[in-house]
Amino acid sequence: MIILNTAQEMRDWSTRAWAKGQQIGFVPTMGALHEGHASLMRAAVAENNGAVLSIFVNPAQFAPHEDFGRYPRTFDADCALADDLGVAAVYAPAAEAMYPPDYSSYVEVGGVSEGLCGASRPHFYRGVCTVVTKLFNAVKPHRAYFGQKDAQQTAVIRRMVRDLDMDIEIIEMPIVREADGLAMSSRNRYLSPEERERALALSRSLQIARTAMADGERDADTLITQVREALEPVRVDYVALVDTVTMEPVTTIKQPVLLAIAAYVGNTRLIDNIKFIPPDAH
Amino acid sequence: MIILNTAQEMRDWSTRAWAKGQQIGFVPTMGALHEGHASLMRAAVAENNGAVLSIFVNPAQFAPHEDFGRYPRTFDADCALADDLGVAAVYAPAAEAMYPPDYSSYVEVGGVSEGLCGASRPHFYRGVCTVVTKLFNAVKPHRAYFGQKDAQQTAVIRRMVRDLDMDIEIIEMPIVREADGLAMSSRNRYLSPEERERALALSRSLQIARTAMADGERDADTLITQVREALEPVRVDYVALVDTVTMEPVTTIKQPVLLAIAAYVGNTRLIDNIKFIPPDAH
Repeated sequence: MIILNTAQEMRDWSTRAWAKGQQIGFVPTMGALHEGHASLMRAAVAENNGAVLSIFVNPAQFAPHEDFGRYPRTFDADCALADDLGVAAVYAPAAEAMYPPDYSSYVEVGGVSEGLCGASRPHFYRGVCTVVTKLFNAVKPHRAYFGQKDAQQTAVIRRMVRDLDMDIEIIEMPIVREADGLAMSSRNRYLSPEERERALALSRSLQIARTAMADGERDADTLITQVREALEPVRVDYVALVDTVTMEPVTTIKQPVLLAIAAYVGNTRLIDNIKFIPPDAH
Repeated sequence: MIILNTAQEMRDWSTRAWAKGQQIGFVPTMGALHEGHASLMRAAVAENNGAVLSIFVNPAQFAPHEDFGRYPRTFDADCALADDLGVAAVYAPAAEAMYPPDYSSYVEVGGVSEGLCGASRPHFYRGVCTVVTKLFNAVKPHRAYFGQKDAQQTAVIRRMVRDLDMDIEIIEMPIVREADGLAMSSRNRYLSPEERERALALSRSLQIARTAMADGERDADTLITQVREALEPVRVDYVALVDTVTMEPVTTIKQPVLLAIAAYVGNTRLIDNIKFIPPDAH
């Protein structure tokens, strides 16, 4: 496995792969890898001739009060895991090279980015779309892999890829959970033992809603109220039932929907979601 | 020469070229081709294994009151010229495919885009950067050719390419002029014979400034006043002396500068410019 630190090195590597007719699978991450990332890397390795992992904690997607400075950084362990899984190259650019002092270009996706996390975290998706565009231009992937835990992010990236005519297939992989249901997240390591226990309210609330939907409940307000009640142990940021493609709120479920939640457990903001496709959806 | 009408067709063509190790030279245009465009196509053909011309009148860079509807469209003549010059492929997408009703992604470049034409035409460079990104993603060029007449556009594109890590060399070719000095422009055909004569004020005013700079004049206000006096026959939009890279105003010439003007001749807005590098610039 090779580690590449500049966009030029990365592009040269990818240009050689394209010239050999190879397919590149790409997993963009902020490092602090867990089993969710591992599932993305396994798919990228299996479905392509070369898998690239990027590790970059992107300052452009953190607000000043957020956790950029203390975001976990475990570079050596991340590289060892990637190597074990058969990743061909790790792209780990420096922040100063990614954003020089006179940096001034941004990619913005409207509509699909504006609710949910986009409402709670202004400029978050601008930072995500900008860095993902930069990473795509350096890695030149054929396929890019994202986790469903960041379902709105996948929807935003899909829209960006379609709108900007990027020649990249976006693949979303299922959420990977701990044995007790907690969705894997690099931020879980912020939790104290007591918070870790309370954090189970997120996945439990979604299970209640999943059961209700399976039993025929189609009314958004009813489902959201049930979820909010189950989230009583934590501080809710949002609970939303939206269309899986447009991320627009749904009042009565007739199409594939995303039920997404964000909540603070202590000072740690966690997100989780489920998707539901009604049997009669067309 | 092949004509491609969809992003997917264009990307497939380019992917085959990359797999053969070929270099692609790209000339993005709005059609209504003139000798300025021809100089770009000649360079793209000479310096690459395959040249692509795009013809797309981009609605995203016109304001509602501007000339999108009556912008000259001469598709068959444009294709004949491209074919004569050895262009391998013409990419001519449909506006409805480029901007479907739920289109919502834009590329914005701050700073360098904000003065000159960016001040006169809000959203102009957002439209330019967005469409050029889309065209770059479809054509996947190694080199892209732009004319110096749109010098701020080249500076904005260069910044975008650098910031977003696009693997594309941006090449700016000199302004091509009519025998009497008028800079070639697709919009020159809007001019009546009387306006065509008055339009010469633009190139003449720049020649006066060029002579003054060659004679040692370094003061921006003095030069701008001389240019404005020579532009008396037309209605000035702006006269600006700026750094060639940042497009920021210069008060005393110490570095390479762009002297750029925009003016209305009747209802037609024309632009022109010269660059000047002081002999002692480092």
